[in-house]
Amino acid sequence: MTELGTNRYGKQSIRLVRVIRGPVHRVRDLTVDVSLEGAFDPAFVHGDNALVVATDTMKNTVYAFATDHLGGAIEPFAVVLARHFVEAQAVERATVAVREHAWEPLQAKAGPAPDAFRRSGGMTRTTAATATHDGTHVDSGVEDLVLMKTARSAFSGFPRDAHTTLPEVRDRIMATKVSATWRNATDAADWDARHGTLIDTLLATFADHDSESVQHSIWLVANAMLEAEPGVEHVTMRLPNLHHWIVDLTPFGQPSGDIFVATEQPYGLIEATVRRSGRG
Amino acid sequence: MTELGTNRYGKQSIRLVRVIRGPVHRVRDLTVDVSLEGAFDPAFVHGDNALVVATDTMKNTVYAFATDHLGGAIEPFAVVLARHFVEAQAVERATVAVREHAWEPLQAKAGPAPDAFRRSGGMTRTTAATATHDGTHVDSGVEDLVLMKTARSAFSGFPRDAHTTLPEVRDRIMATKVSATWRNATDAADWDARHGTLIDTLLATFADHDSESVQHSIWLVANAMLEAEPGVEHVTMRLPNLHHWIVDLTPFGQPSGDIFVATEQPYGLIEATVRRSGRG
Amino acid sequence: MTELGTNRYGKQSIRLVRVIRGPVHRVRDLTVDVSLEGAFDPAFVHGDNALVVATDTMKNTVYAFATDHLGGAIEPFAVVLARHFVEAQAVERATVAVREHAWEPLQAKAGPAPDAFRRSGGMTRTTAATATHDGTHVDSGVEDLVLMKTARSAFSGFPRDAHTTLPEVRDRIMATKVSATWRNATDAADWDARHGTLIDTLLATFADHDSESVQHSIWLVANAMLEAEPGVEHVTMRLPNLHHWIVDLTPFGQPSGDIFVATEQPYGLIEATVRRSGRG
Amino acid sequence: MTELGTNRYGKQSIRLVRVIRGPVHRVRDLTVDVSLEGAFDPAFVHGDNALVVATDTMKNTVYAFATDHLGGAIEPFAVVLARHFVEAQAVERATVAVREHAWEPLQAKAGPAPDAFRRSGGMTRTTAATATHDGTHVDSGVEDLVLMKTARSAFSGFPRDAHTTLPEVRDRIMATKVSATWRNATDAADWDARHGTLIDTLLATFADHDSESVQHSIWLVANAMLEAEPGVEHVTMRLPNLHHWIVDLTPFGQPSGDIFVATEQPYGLIEATVRRSGRG
Repeated sequence: MTELGTNRYGKQSIRLVRVIRGPVHRVRDLTVDVSLEGAFDPAFVHGDNALVVATDTMKNTVYAFATDHLGGAIEPFAVVLARHFVEAQAVERATVAVREHAWEPLQAKAGPAPDAFRRSGGMTRTTAATATHDGTHVDSGVEDLVLMKTARSAFSGFPRDAHTTLPEVRDRIMATKVSATWRNATDAADWDARHGTLIDTLLATFADHDSESVQHSIWLVANAMLEAEPGVEHVTMRLPNLHHWIVDLTPFGQPSGDIFVATEQPYGLIEATVRRSGRG
Repeated sequence: MTELGTNRYGKQSIRLVRVIRGPVHRVRDLTVDVSLEGAFDPAFVHGDNALVVATDTMKNTVYAFATDHLGGAIEPFAVVLARHFVEAQAVERATVAVREHAWEPLQAKAGPAPDAFRRSGGMTRTTAATATHDGTHVDSGVEDLVLMKTARSAFSGFPRDAHTTLPEVRDRIMATKVSATWRNATDAADWDARHGTLIDTLLATFADHDSESVQHSIWLVANAMLEAEPGVEHVTMRLPNLHHWIVDLTPFGQPSGDIFVATEQPYGLIEATVRRSGRG
Repeated sequence: MTELGTNRYGKQSIRLVRVIRGPVHRVRDLTVDVSLEGAFDPAFVHGDNALVVATDTMKNTVYAFATDHLGGAIEPFAVVLARHFVEAQAVERATVAVREHAWEPLQAKAGPAPDAFRRSGGMTRTTAATATHDGTHVDSGVEDLVLMKTARSAFSGFPRDAHTTLPEVRDRIMATKVSATWRNATDAADWDARHGTLIDTLLATFADHDSESVQHSIWLVANAMLEAEPGVEHVTMRLPNLHHWIVDLTPFGQPSGDIFVATEQPYGLIEATVRRSGRG
Repeated sequence: MTELGTNRYGKQSIRLVRVIRGPVHRVRDLTVDVSLEGAFDPAFVHGDNALVVATDTMKNTVYAFATDHLGGAIEPFAVVLARHFVEAQAVERATVAVREHAWEPLQAKAGPAPDAFRRSGGMTRTTAATATHDGTHVDSGVEDLVLMKTARSAFSGFPRDAHTTLPEVRDRIMATKVSATWRNATDAADWDARHGTLIDTLLATFADHDSESVQHSIWLVANAMLEAEPGVEHVTMRLPNLHHWIVDLTPFGQPSGDIFVATEQPYGLIEATVRRSGRG
């Protein structure tokens, strides 16, 4: 004879981004885990699901509650969700764990950007020196710089064929993890200063520009970097397009457009070099 | 003056699973990357997308082509896709890279299972000994064992509330990465033999049973293990539900149901212990 | 007939930390990759290693050069290494790639700390609400907070047995990635303010204290947090000890003690809860 | 007033490989975690380490015990370690968790290889088709194939300079994770058969050859592949050298040479293409 011991179930790694729009936007970026314990023996022993709230329903609930309950700290959001789930039949304990990933507003040229952000985190500075018997060249760059535009990013006018289902959009979220390298045409008098100038220019241009596509953004940002620093010969950028899909809240009677799923797979990837004319 | 240098773009990490049904099923599990090079300068320089095939369209094309062109090796599938993409306006070079992850049929009790599979890969064997001054107990187990049922897995009869959108389904894919541990009530005369018996029972039961839910599967598998090996006191299983969503191919005039997106986030997670009655 | 095509070899992921001591310390944290190309055909074709600089020698060289050549930016450090390696027999091209991971000085209670640092990066804020039919409790916390003390960390007086080879040390590097959670005894009037107070206290105490062990550090930090915030009932900390081993530079005629290998495996792990007396 | 609550400490992720030599070798590959609970309050409260067994000592003990106690299953090995650690002063509970990663003997041309192994796990099959308006070419390959030679691998005769400390060695462990790609000069009549032939040749040659270096191994393996399959134009291999360092057991009165630390950072990396002469 056997019996069921401790058990629990739920939904893990629900990735939720909320953009709170106003004169200045705010970004909330959460990963939510839901876990339930209770009298679920019939589901195990008899294959009877009458008490088993689908984990898909948990996910929907997290997204739907974000509209009304995510104005403040993550603690009250977790509490209202836990109290909601514990009310379901058979549930004895509901645990809602939330991790918040911080985003900081970017500085645009004219001051704080209202709609451009940087995920808090370490930016890795890079260099590669290559020596041959004829000489040495030095590349410098940056990795692990995660940026987001919550407005002024469009993608439209692209070709449509039998496999095209993507709608035209004049206002989307653009999120990316920047990898950039630049070839140093000359040694810098002050390498740290050059690096600082280029990163500041990258960030301010990202914040300031209106984007028609990731390609367009690369062109504008790389051109601004080449203009800012004459000692640089060309700039190569590699931008993954980290898609944020709008959650459809209409089944729950709520307006869609502010709540997004942050995804990692698949992702668009755009790479290009911009160089001074007549050098290459 | 600046100009555009080398550049390319595309879609990375398209996760595609195809189930080829018949008396005996086959599973094809691919990760596909698409990358295009060509005369895309207007997209960068002028923000003009008239030549920019959306990476979303690339993804759709990969799924749609899987129906007709993924009967054999991955090489002809990659070739037909690359030749398709190079025909788009402005494209000069199209590269389609495919990685295939192998799945092997499971052995059920009555022979090879027609609809249950194990992803080829190392199963990690585990143990933990805990000693106090009163004695020692030993747990054993397994990790990194990835299994899939392509038939005889259902999920229906669950409660529906305002946030439930999941349809009832009597035939779905169930994929999971098994973590299991068991408490050894007694030392084994032969630890390797005991481990082998329990894993064989786990696999055969997974292949043989009709599943009403992951919970139900845990119950049946853990009970079979307890029955197979009297020296085991209880079995704890931890099964993530690695969702495989059906790709909607109706916009492309194709039947849906055989082509799936393999996802990692979010995932359901079900954990339970099954023990001999009267011992706990 | 076959022949050798393009080829290269080298050492990847050399993890180097340098502490530059003075009234105020500085931390340099690099990952270095070395790669050589040249006339290495005899090694492949005849198994003749007369021209093959060992990748272990590359690693040693990187550590040895850090003493003299890592005072400034990473670019000159990469250049001097690349030029050194290209001088070896048969080498035609040497590439040295460096990634620098930034560390920021901590604020101690009395101002900037001279010998305590935080790795630049996103600190993840966490919470978990658990609801039962009897009530709800809320835990809050932090993850992904990487800290280092470059002075005032000791480990001595521990037991020695037949398997003890670790020397006593009164001055070592202590590096850790903090995971901390605390049980909220009461709701906060302002959750963000409470979180801020606790993190500030954690950081200032980490910077200020003299550590006899990771255990000792946990005690002091957790006690300071409980003192700073009466609404918190207990604090649980989980500190991996991310070992930084001194590189022995004596074979190269250099003093040891400032250059370290940062390691990830194996690592010590210390976990403890500190609570108000008489409550638990 | 505060007090210490539950706490524990130990060493995580101790990576241990044992080669059991004989007419046919065996490989044991473990990751071991040690964790202690007990009366450790003085270490926390007073910074007194008199009871704190160094986690470095735990690591040494695990390696030292492997010589005598790892002849059979992992369960008795974990038990003997847990019972050893629980005997230390203050310890009330010792937990030793072990994960074993399986290795299988390779098939050499003449039968089972006595000293060459493959880590159990999924080998990923790869392809990339590249189409231009002039034609299409197809590369195929393999990833995630982890191999080890426990004999007949040497590295000696390399240049020595001021930074060389590596000893000459005629018998070392060579472990690597193979990435290989080959250019298909012609379409295969049967792509699966071609892939099978090339992988079989790769494995058999790896098992059969005497290696003077990783470079030498690449040459021999790639040449065998080109000989086996005329439809292949060139083979590119990328072999990280996953160093296994001998653990010095002499402080514990044991012979060294059979117990190794498996490391991941830093690693040597050797890449090369071998092609048919006169084609490139």
